[in-house]
Amino acid sequence: MNKMEKKEQLYEGKAKKVFATDDPNLVIVSYKDDATAFNGLKKGTISGKGVINNKMTNYMFGLLEKAGVPTHLVKELNDRETLVKKVSIVPLEVIVRNVAAGSFSKKLGIEEGTKLLCPTLEFSYKNDDLGDPFINDYYALALGLATKEEIDLISKYAFKVNEFMLDFFKKLNIDLIDFKIEFGKTSDGTIILADEISPDTCRFWDSTTHEKLDKDRFRRDMGGVEDAYAEIMKRLMGE
Amino acid sequence: MNKMEKKEQLYEGKAKKVFATDDPNLVIVSYKDDATAFNGLKKGTISGKGVINNKMTNYMFGLLEKAGVPTHLVKELNDRETLVKKVSIVPLEVIVRNVAAGSFSKKLGIEEGTKLLCPTLEFSYKNDDLGDPFINDYYALALGLATKEEIDLISKYAFKVNEFMLDFFKKLNIDLIDFKIEFGKTSDGTIILADEISPDTCRFWDSTTHEKLDKDRFRRDMGGVEDAYAEIMKRLMGE
Ligand SMILES: Nc1ncnc2c1ncn2[C@@H]1O[C@H](COP(=O)(O)OP(=O)(O)OP(=O)(O)O)[C@@H](O)[C@H]1O
Ligand SMILES: Nc1ncnc2c1ncn2[C@@H]1O[C@H](COP(=O)(O)OP(=O)(O)OP(=O)(O)O)[C@@H](O)[C@H]1O
Ligand SMILES: [Mg+2]
Ligand SMILES: [Mg+2]
Repeated sequence: MNKMEKKEQLYEGKAKKVFATDDPNLVIVSYKDDATAFNGLKKGTISGKGVINNKMTNYMFGLLEKAGVPTHLVKELNDRETLVKKVSIVPLEVIVRNVAAGSFSKKLGIEEGTKLLCPTLEFSYKNDDLGDPFINDYYALALGLATKEEIDLISKYAFKVNEFMLDFFKKLNIDLIDFKIEFGKTSDGTIILADEISPDTCRFWDSTTHEKLDKDRFRRDMGGVEDAYAEIMKRLMGE
Repeated sequence: MNKMEKKEQLYEGKAKKVFATDDPNLVIVSYKDDATAFNGLKKGTISGKGVINNKMTNYMFGLLEKAGVPTHLVKELNDRETLVKKVSIVPLEVIVRNVAAGSFSKKLGIEEGTKLLCPTLEFSYKNDDLGDPFINDYYALALGLATKEEIDLISKYAFKVNEFMLDFFKKLNIDLIDFKIEFGKTSDGTIILADEISPDTCRFWDSTTHEKLDKDRFRRDMGGVEDAYAEIMKRLMGE
């Protein structure tokens, strides 16, 4: 495991690259500083983001494992690279919301910051050509994107991730507004949490000032993007 | 009941008017020939539609009652008017699909006519200003549009309506592609099927020729709109 080396690149995404290893069940994820928004329409760089997202994801995945959510994490290799279990990604973006923001606010005419009566779970069909459309669990079944059992397990895990993270970030004086996660299937069919958990994929608001500490600063040209990522990391690591 | 008379108009919708009666728990629905599509953007008239939709809805609601789905139907008063239980409409358009068509096909890039692996159920939030956005059951809960118990009951009824109608129309050589229904709450909180079931609210395709026998002929300027409605009615009434 110590001499695990990058072989050929399997995939280059908008924020990460994925490399093969000698072990067919393991891949190396490499985090870039590249940032995109609005399905790739807006492009830029957030200096240092790759390092922060790598470390933050691994930190959160480690905690979530202990809390009972299996993840792809195997071993952090260096600042930007992590060895993970190779999965076939379930083509669903799994989104949990605690407070109205973003597309939810826009679609439903509900002011950003409005606390929801209960957390919501939703699925987008991971398909860039279609623009990752919002679907529901019946659609996922009817399109053969996942089985009923997989959807139920993914839903259970997603709410568990939310409960854990809500509580965890509250202690850092951060409100978890919403987040997107992805799940994958290992070669033996086990569903595990994959991809990342970072300010790219979560909305974090300072509990006191309501200042945004996430990718919305980039999406909305608010400035202070790097500082926001660094602030989250600082609170996470306890200074 | 025989001398039930229309009092003041409570509501004029795009396809129907609703009138008060002497009984606060009953209203009279009056079906118009007006047709609209694309959230009111396209307007027109389908001559004779009001009569057909009134009679067809009452016929279907009568059968569905017997099949175990409670409905608002009380008594057909004349060709265009029916006495129904007054409800407060649950602000959800409840859509069931058996075959890909319309917005589903467009959104997911799936050819119209593709049979789905299983029927789908979905909710749109009945809100004209927002354009009746597609939501899911968690959204409905988080927005307080319905309770978990109401959503579960509505879902159960919707699938029951689908099973009954699939079978019923198959015998008339008609494929039920998809349909929209609405539910309401009576003054004592009982959930019942309300509104209408008609070629305005269902997609019907001839099983042999795949000819469209529904409002898509109007939406898509295909001609033969009146004939299509008449054909459905003819098959329904057995010539
Ligand atoms: N454990 C894993 N095994 C295999 N693939 C993974 C794993 N974890 C994440 N992935 C996938 O690797 C890619 C990471 O790249 P990135 O996040 O930059 O993609 P992206 O630009 O967001 O595009 P996509 O729409 O594919 O997510 C994603 O497609 C993600 O689903
Ligand atoms: N039993 C009932 N009691 C009260 N209202 C009803 C009942 N059945 C149907 N309705 C409502 O009456 C109205 C019927 O009018 P119509 O179908 O023309 O409305 P519409 O133009 O489609 O607009 P909407 O968006 O309100 O449905 C609808 O708002 C429908 O929800
Ligand atoms: Mg990604
Ligand atoms: Mg209507």
